[in-house]
Amino acid sequence: MPDILINGKQASTLSVTDRGLHYGDGLFETVAIKHGRPCLLPQHLERLQYGCERLNMPMPDSETLTQEIQELCRGEGQWVVKIIISRGSGGRGYLPPENPEPNRILISYPWPDYPQDYWLKGVKIRLCTIPLAINPQLAGIKHLNRLEHVLARSEWQEPEIAEGLMLDMDGHLIEGTMSNLFLVKNNSLYTPDISRCGVAGVMRQWLIDEAEKQGIAVHITDLYVDDLKMADEVFLSNSLIGLWPVCQWGQQQYTPGSVTSALLKLLRKENVC
Amino acid sequence: MPDILINGKQASTLSVTDRGLHYGDGLFETVAIKHGRPCLLPQHLERLQYGCERLNMPMPDSETLTQEIQELCRGEGQWVVKIIISRGSGGRGYLPPENPEPNRILISYPWPDYPQDYWLKGVKIRLCTIPLAINPQLAGIKHLNRLEHVLARSEWQEPEIAEGLMLDMDGHLIEGTMSNLFLVKNNSLYTPDISRCGVAGVMRQWLIDEAEKQGIAVHITDLYVDDLKMADEVFLSNSLIGLWPVCQWGQQQYTPGSVTSALLKLLRKENVC
Repeated sequence: MPDILINGKQASTLSVTDRGLHYGDGLFETVAIKHGRPCLLPQHLERLQYGCERLNMPMPDSETLTQEIQELCRGEGQWVVKIIISRGSGGRGYLPPENPEPNRILISYPWPDYPQDYWLKGVKIRLCTIPLAINPQLAGIKHLNRLEHVLARSEWQEPEIAEGLMLDMDGHLIEGTMSNLFLVKNNSLYTPDISRCGVAGVMRQWLIDEAEKQGIAVHITDLYVDDLKMADEVFLSNSLIGLWPVCQWGQQQYTPGSVTSALLKLLRKENVC
Repeated sequence: MPDILINGKQASTLSVTDRGLHYGDGLFETVAIKHGRPCLLPQHLERLQYGCERLNMPMPDSETLTQEIQELCRGEGQWVVKIIISRGSGGRGYLPPENPEPNRILISYPWPDYPQDYWLKGVKIRLCTIPLAINPQLAGIKHLNRLEHVLARSEWQEPEIAEGLMLDMDGHLIEGTMSNLFLVKNNSLYTPDISRCGVAGVMRQWLIDEAEKQGIAVHITDLYVDDLKMADEVFLSNSLIGLWPVCQWGQQQYTPGSVTSALLKLLRKENVC
C-alpha cells in the first residue's frame, strides 16, 4: 500500500519548480479516514473547489481524488490523508502560468494518538502572541501560506497544552492553530467570524449546521478575549478530532456543559469522524 | 553545468514532506549574477541570516552557499540564482521538528530579457486591488508565503504594464509585486515603511544608503496614493533591475528627474547589478 500518490502515481518527490514550494501557491485538506471511509469528503471537496475558484486554479477531478484516497487507505484502521493541490510547476516570477497543470499530492499519515481524556475531560489551551494578519481575499480558504500557524505552534512546547488560540491584528479571537473555536454562553453557541482571516473548517460548518438543527442558536460574530473569560463552555473543532471541550485556560477552568456534550454525542451518533 | 543544486547535489526533485511546500515554511533570495559574480551577495546572505533568526531556523553555512552559487554560474553571461531555504522535512502538523534539517535549494534561471527602454524611458505601472495583510512578525523578511503577490501579479496581463503597486489593508503604499517603491518630492527621497508588511529589498537598502551618502534626504515613512499623485519622480528597485524609473501610472505621466538619474548613474558606476 503506497503512502504517497503524486498525480496518481506512487512517488515521494516533487519537482523543485513547484509553485507550492516557491510561493505557497496552492491549497490543502486534511481528511480523517475511518474503516476505509473518508469522513466529510463531500465537504472537503467542496472547500477545495471553492479554494481553487478563489485562487483561479483548475480543480482536480473529484472522482479521481476520491479514488486515490481509497487507494491510499484500504481496509480497516484509522488514517489521515492530507491532500495538497499546488498550481504546479512554473518559471521564475509570481505570474501564474497561462495553462497551469496543478500537482495533486496525497499523503497518508498514521492516526494521531490523542489521549481519550481530551474528549472526556477536555484540553488545556493558551493564547498565542503572533497575530493573524487580516486579508479578506485569503480568508476562509485552506491555502498553503501557513507561516503564522507555524510560528504560533512554535510558541509552546509543554505537552499538556493541546492548542493555542490566535487573535487577529485587531484583537479578535479567530481560531486555534489547527482548530476552530466555539464558545457557549447562556446555551447559545458563538464562533468567530472568519471573513477577514482564519480557516473555514469543514467540521466548524458541520457543527454550526447541526447545532441549528438541534434548535441551538448560533452566532457567527466578532469575539474577544473577554468573551473567552465570560464563556460558560468552550470547545475546539477540526476534521480529525470532531470536537474537544476546553477545560482550562491559564487560571480559568471550564466544565463541559450541556451544549458541548450534546454536540459531542451527536458527532458519535452520526459517526462523523 | 547543473542548473539546480539541492543540498549541494545536482537534483531536480525534493521530498514532498518538505515544510516549504506544506506551509511556505522557509525563505528565499533572488541573486543577480554578472560575469560569474553574484551581486550584493553579502547583503543577500545577511537578510537570509536575519530571516532564519526570525523564523528560528538554522542558517546554512554562508561559504557553502557562496561556493554553490559559483558552481551554478561559472563563466561569463548573466544569470539569476534563486536560493530557497526551507525548514526541511517534517511530519504532519505545524510544530517544527526539534532539530530541523533545512533544505538548501539553488536554481539558476536565464537573465530576464527586459527592454532597455525600461531604464531609459521608464515603465508603466498600475495599482493592484488585493491588499497586503499586516503582520509585523512576518514583515521585512523574504519568506515563502507569497500568495498575495501571486494574486496581485495575476491582476493584469497587459505586457506594457511592467509592475503593479500594492497597498496594505490600511491603504498605505508598500511595494510592487516584485520591487520596492521610491518617490521623489522636492529632491528628497521617500520610501514606504515596511515594518508592518512588505519586503526589505537588498537593493532598496543599497539605494537608501547610497542616497544618504550623496546628501539626498531619505524619508522612510507612511505613503499614500495621494503621495504617488504628487510625486515629482517615481522609481522601482530590486536586485535584478537595480532601478526602473516609472514613466506612467494611468493618466499620470512622470519624467525621470535628477534624483532618479543620479542613482541610476551610481548603480552603473558601482557596477552593482
